Parts: sequence; C-alpha cells; structure tokens
Amino acid sequence: MRTYPDCIPCLVRQALDALRMVGADDEVTCRAMKRVLAEAAEFEMSKSPPEMARNTHRIIREETGNPDPYLKIKKHSTGEALKLEGMVRGKIANSDNPLRSAVRFAIAGNVMDFAIFQWCKDRFMARLDEALHKEIDEDAMREFEFAVEKAGTILYLADNTGETVFDRLLLELLSGRELIYAVKSAPAINDALREDAIEAGIDKYARIVENGWDAPGTVLDRCSPEFLEIYRTADMVISKGQGNFESLGEIDREVFFLTQIKCQVIARDLKGEIGDWVILHSVPTA
Amino acid sequence: MRTYPDCIPCLVRQALDALRMVGADDEVTCRAMKRVLAEAAEFEMSKSPPEMARNTHRIIREETGNPDPYLKIKKHSTGEALKLEGMVRGKIANSDNPLRSAVRFAIAGNVMDFAIFQWCKDRFMARLDEALHKEIDEDAMREFEFAVEKAGTILYLADNTGETVFDRLLLELLSGRELIYAVKSAPAINDALREDAIEAGIDKYARIVENGWDAPGTVLDRCSPEFLEIYRTADMVISKGQGNFESLGEIDREVFFLTQIKCQVIARDLKGEIGDWVILHSVPTA
Repeated sequence: MRTYPDCIPCLVRQALDALRMVGADDEVTCRAMKRVLAEAAEFEMSKSPPEMARNTHRIIREETGNPDPYLKIKKHSTGEALKLEGMVRGKIANSDNPLRSAVRFAIAGNVMDFAIFQWCKDRFMARLDEALHKEIDEDAMREFEFAVEKAGTILYLADNTGETVFDRLLLELLSGRELIYAVKSAPAINDALREDAIEAGIDKYARIVENGWDAPGTVLDRCSPEFLEIYRTADMVISKGQGNFESLGEIDREVFFLTQIKCQVIARDLKGEIGDWVILHSVPTA
Repeated sequence: MRTYPDCIPCLVRQALDALRMVGADDEVTCRAMKRVLAEAAEFEMSKSPPEMARNTHRIIREETGNPDPYLKIKKHSTGEALKLEGMVRGKIANSDNPLRSAVRFAIAGNVMDFAIFQWCKDRFMARLDEALHKEIDEDAMREFEFAVEKAGTILYLADNTGETVFDRLLLELLSGRELIYAVKSAPAINDALREDAIEAGIDKYARIVENGWDAPGTVLDRCSPEFLEIYRTADMVISKGQGNFESLGEIDREVFFLTQIKCQVIARDLKGEIGDWVILHSVPTA
C-alpha cells in the first residue's frame, strides 16, 4: 500500500510521542523533529507507511542515542500479556472451537500497538472480554482453518511485542507443522525482535527468523534472501497487524492477514471501521 | 512565544485539514503537504506558531490556486453569528454589568476557530449559554473596566471571522472613544479581513485598519508602519484569540488578551487548561 497524505500528520505525531516517551530534551526533540520533517518531505509516497515510519524511528534512535526507545514498554507489554496467559488459555481450551478462539485472541492482542495507543489495561481487558463474540468474517475463518489443515509449513509474521504471547497460544494449536515466526532485525517501534519473541516463549513452538530489516512491517524488497525464500515457499503465511498489511500491499502470494483496523486510511481500504477486527484471506490478483 | 515541538504535528494536521476542506485532489494534496513539511523542517523555532501557520497556508493557497480557502466557512460563520446577535444583545443588555457581559460573549465567540475546530452549532450554543457564568479572572476584568474608563483610543486586534459579530457588540459599549479594529491584510486561515469585518458591521463602530501581514496573529516585525504607530500610541490594546497571544508573546506594551485556551502548549504557558477562558492583563516585564 502507498502512503496517503492522511498518514503524514499521524507519522509526525508518532515521532513526537516517541521523543517524549524517551524523555528527549527540547533541543534533541526539535532537532529530531526537523530531520523527521525533512525526510518526510522527500519521501516517495508510492512507498508504504512503514517505510516512512522506519525512517522516522531511525532518526529518533540516532538523535536520542537510544538504540531501542521502546525497550521498557516492550518488556512491560510482555509481562502484562504473560500475566493474562492462563486466563486466555482457559478461555481458548473451553471454547467450542479452540483454533478459531486462538485466532480471535491473537487479533485481540494486536491492540498492544504503541505507535498508535498508550497502554491501558482496562482497554486491553475489554478487548479480551469481547474476543469470543466480536464480529469477524466467518468465511475467511473457515478458509483459515482449511489452510491450516493442509499446511506443512507456516510462516507467521510477527507484529508487536506482548501480542507475541497471544501469537504463541495460536502457534501451540498449529503444532505438528513446521512453524517459522518472523521478527524484525533491529528495533522498529515496539515490534517484536528475536529476544522479545523468546521472552514470550515463541522459540518453544516455532523457529524464529529475522526478516532482514527494521521497518515496522514487511517490506519485501528490503528483506533478507533467507526470509524471502521462506516467504515464497511456505504453504501458508499468517501476517499480523496493520504494518505488515500496509507494507505487503498488493501481494504476490496467498496471505492470511489478522489485524485490527486502527486508522481511517486502512478503514477505507478495507471498507471497514476503526476498531473492526479483520481476518482477510488475500490471494494474488494476477 | 516561540514554536514548541508540540506545535508541529498540530500545524501539519491543520494543513491537511485545509487541503481536504477545499477539496484538493490527491496530487495537489501530496505536493502541498511535501512543501509544508520542507518549510517546517527549515522553520526557525524561535519564531511564533502563527508564522509557521502563515507559511503553511500560503503554500496551500499557491498549490490549490484558491486565494481564500476559508471564504465559504467565513461567510457561514458571519451568517450564523448574525442570527444569534439579537439573543446575545438581549442577554448583555439585561445583565447586571453589560460591559463585563459583552467581554464574556466576545470570548465565547472565540470558539469560531476553524484551524482547530469544525463548526458545530451545538457546541457554539453551549459556549454562549455558559458565557455569563463561566469562571474568569475577575481582577483582570476590573482592570479591563478601569482601562476602558481612562482610554481615549482603543486598538482591538481581531481574530476569527464570525467572532467579529461578538466583537462588535463589545465595540458598541466602548463607543465615545476612538476605536480601531485591526484585521489581517490577506487571507490567514479564517481570520477576519476588512470585508469580513464590514459584513459583521464593525465599520459602524470602529475604523478598520489592516495590520500589514497575513499571519494568523500579529507579528510586529512584519506589521505595517501605520499599524505599528497605532499599536504603540493607543491608550489600550485588546487582543483577541490565541494567534495574537502567541505572536505578541513577550510584549513591549500593556495589552489585554481575551481568548479561549485551545491547546496544551498555551494551557501550560498560561497555567490553565484547554477550554479555559482567559482575560489576561499583560504589562511589559522590563
């Protein structure tokens, strides 16, 4: 997906939020913001929003000298998610269809997006409470189940740290297949890195691979050959979150996208509304 | 007042809102937004926010070819305000202290700020309903009354179109003095120009002067010699709105600021909260 004019104020605001979060002083904040603006002014809008976000957050890391500004919030997210794991596991196990329920909780976990939201435990609990009855595309869910049945190899594209714990509950139900969990290769907002995935226990169920880049999405022409080989040959690809959806855009292979709709641009694109939950079975158009 | 990092996302969002409002197509919007970003990246933060806004809105006028993008909204604002004039005039006349009441309604009218708000009649009526009992600095109000008593010449710095109608109800009560109403010299968001002030009937009570520039504020080192002469010699200066407050900043003369607090930066500066009404008697510090 290209970057829309509507993305610009949002990305500029995200930059300021990130600088405030790491406690950057006024001088650093001004200098970083001006670099963000200059970079955005030169940005090629045919590229995807995660590519602009990648440039932005690279500047913030450089100007603040902080290699992973969201580290604390990532640790906190994983901690909070681990505390809820038992409760969610119980709900999944006691439901009529554990696989479908695990998919639903994996989408619920996508609220742990600190580019867009501030952490709010109440809001998160509300998402978990509605997980089993939130409206969702049941046809796509059936196609998802069917694809899982057939798949020998599943590539799972991670999104936010913390959400990883709910991803793992879904991975547990996919076991028996070759599972690969793809993370970013360097800090990208609060997206999961290898160590974040390990903290969530992903390595017990899936092989963790890095995708080769540090955008908060999956920008194929920047990904590593190793990742691309898996992406092309996996029987099934499950993609979590808006950033992966935005960057994979007009896809060249079958992908199941699981995400929440978090902004007007994506709402328009998916003909939904902010807050909707999406399971989208996407197939190549050509 | 200088421009704070917090102003940047707000000004970038305002630019997009303005482009949407005039129905700019995607190509024009992208081109204009990129120019806005480049200009903001070079902006000297020691200058005031209205100076950055001026650059932004000049770009929008150039790129859209629309010399006054807010013309329609300005006409609508004046029309709506004129419909309410009789009701407000009655409330002022029947109040214990008509001058104080007129000041309060002039501040209420400052909600007609379309850089920040969308027009909402219900919200506007709510502001008018609370005008007579909204908390305000009563000491400053007494100083205002005292200054009016003594003044032979009063310079009134206009802010938004539509608000002008409520300014006029205050000007009526100041009659007997030499009244000068200062407007911008060219379109500055929805700020009043000479013709907007005339539509509100200002010319019946005050001499209208242009301040010489097109920022949505009063940037003294850009104002015309004619305006500056009046500004320096007037017995009393009444300044409406946040833009004038931001740009006059560390003032070199006594000014009465009447405004609503509309953003966190000003709230912090004035030790108030968003939504507060301000009457500030400001005197030179040196």
